[in-house]
Amino acid sequence: MFTGLSAFPLTPMNEQGVDEGAFTRLVEQLVAAKVDSIGALGSTGSYAYLSRIERSRVTQLAVEAAGNVPVMVSIGSLRTRDVLLLAEDAQKAGVKALLLPPVSYQKLSAEDVFSLYETVTANISVPLCVYDNPGTTHFEFTDELHGRIARLPNVHSIKIPGVPEAPDQARARVDRLRALIPEHVTIGVSGDAFAATGLNAGCEVWYSVIGGLFPKTALAITRAALSGNAEEAARLSESLKPLWALFTQFGGSLRVVATAAELRGFTHSPSLPLPLRAISGSGRQQIAAAIDELELS
Amino acid sequence: MFTGLSAFPLTPMNEQGVDEGAFTRLVEQLVAAKVDSIGALGSTGSYAYLSRIERSRVTQLAVEAAGNVPVMVSIGSLRTRDVLLLAEDAQKAGVKALLLPPVSYQKLSAEDVFSLYETVTANISVPLCVYDNPGTTHFEFTDELHGRIARLPNVHSIKIPGVPEAPDQARARVDRLRALIPEHVTIGVSGDAFAATGLNAGCEVWYSVIGGLFPKTALAITRAALSGNAEEAARLSESLKPLWALFTQFGGSLRVVATAAELRGFTHSPSLPLPLRAISGSGRQQIAAAIDELELS
Repeated sequence: MFTGLSAFPLTPMNEQGVDEGAFTRLVEQLVAAKVDSIGALGSTGSYAYLSRIERSRVTQLAVEAAGNVPVMVSIGSLRTRDVLLLAEDAQKAGVKALLLPPVSYQKLSAEDVFSLYETVTANISVPLCVYDNPGTTHFEFTDELHGRIARLPNVHSIKIPGVPEAPDQARARVDRLRALIPEHVTIGVSGDAFAATGLNAGCEVWYSVIGGLFPKTALAITRAALSGNAEEAARLSESLKPLWALFTQFGGSLRVVATAAELRGFTHSPSLPLPLRAISGSGRQQIAAAIDELELS
Repeated sequence: MFTGLSAFPLTPMNEQGVDEGAFTRLVEQLVAAKVDSIGALGSTGSYAYLSRIERSRVTQLAVEAAGNVPVMVSIGSLRTRDVLLLAEDAQKAGVKALLLPPVSYQKLSAEDVFSLYETVTANISVPLCVYDNPGTTHFEFTDELHGRIARLPNVHSIKIPGVPEAPDQARARVDRLRALIPEHVTIGVSGDAFAATGLNAGCEVWYSVIGGLFPKTALAITRAALSGNAEEAARLSESLKPLWALFTQFGGSLRVVATAAELRGFTHSPSLPLPLRAISGSGRQQIAAAIDELELS
């Protein structure tokens, strides 16, 4: 399941709880579009803002709605104890894989993080994807540490945070990591603006935010790149530049995608957990104009 | 309660739970030393690693053991919803104040953070201290934002993360913030290495990590500074330089203080929640040597 397009849906919610209907419809839309896998409760799915019970419930909904499409969920939490409980819940709910970010409050050392993955991988029975996202976890992996963790049992993929913009540098970055990890471990690009470059540089999978809301748009880029049509993938990604610019302008993809989901009527407004909020005012109009013009679907 | 020495004890714990006996003894020791207030469940008290039920229980233990010494606890959480619940729990348990850090996973904007404080301060009945700690929350306050938040009802103190090393620069930094906040709001220094400089520069309170384990040592510095004996405060702080160096060497104060607590027999080992760990090996011997030589108490 760690190849192709892995689509990360939002978990629409408000202060009263998760909007289960809207979440289920988002997942069904991904299934209809034939994404390769679904990454529920990723950072885009606001896993960090939900209780254990809520995460278990959302996982069950995702697995039910996904049918034959494999579901992965994040089991990230500050404590190893809680990560193990979340892994248990997720496996009971029938996920096909687990996604583990080294979430931090106190700064973590490389040894802390290695021990976390060592403990968790020894206690699970489904594949695990290493979630490298310094923007939210505030932990910076070295390639050497990735190499050590990738040799642990059950590790099957690494979700990296983007690649350099220049194709040759992107290729060099992916090759450098590839040389340090076993053959059965795939490398997945995240940071949607980098996806085409990453896939063209040899990443096997795109862990995709826009894929969770606009799966056809994301699938077109993925299929082009993975069938060897690097130019077409780059062209399609280039055509979405106004969207990537909005991600930068609004401090990341989440608020933009949540705003887009609200504007398109996929979710009610608000859809994010306070203190997070979607974009309002003129920024919201900017997003509305962009998603219409780009014909995202 | 927002003046003098506010001592932040560890919450000793392991994978099975909180060591309630050890925690209570730490609090009793602070009462015996006559600290001015107790900041239970601060970052040093690992609040972020505990469940709501555990936090409520530790708060009750702190209030019971503290007697007449006022207790403040952190109500930090990623979601506004959970912060409000934690505030309710803490007030029911009898705390005299609440400490609120803007904890983040997704990056927060100044408006998100202002709204968080606006909502929380409108829903509490005890004073609140604003917890500015970018090292753990990854949110950077501007002084302008501090000024806006300090004018909200129930805000009575701001815990700032250190001051510049040079006394005149420290004074300028404290004066700049002071000019933007109401008179009834005190400024408290944290980052133990900066405490003497901060108090000498006009901070009214030291939110202290070592005060939670070695209250007499911290009280001597506090009393000297607040009675106008700036030189003596600086001299006492200077004599602890090997300890400040260990905080830097081991990426912050928590692991060093937890190691010291284990070494002195205040807590069992391990005392931190995995994946956090105290210092082992030669680093542990270094810490043992330092705390003996410095005669911390």
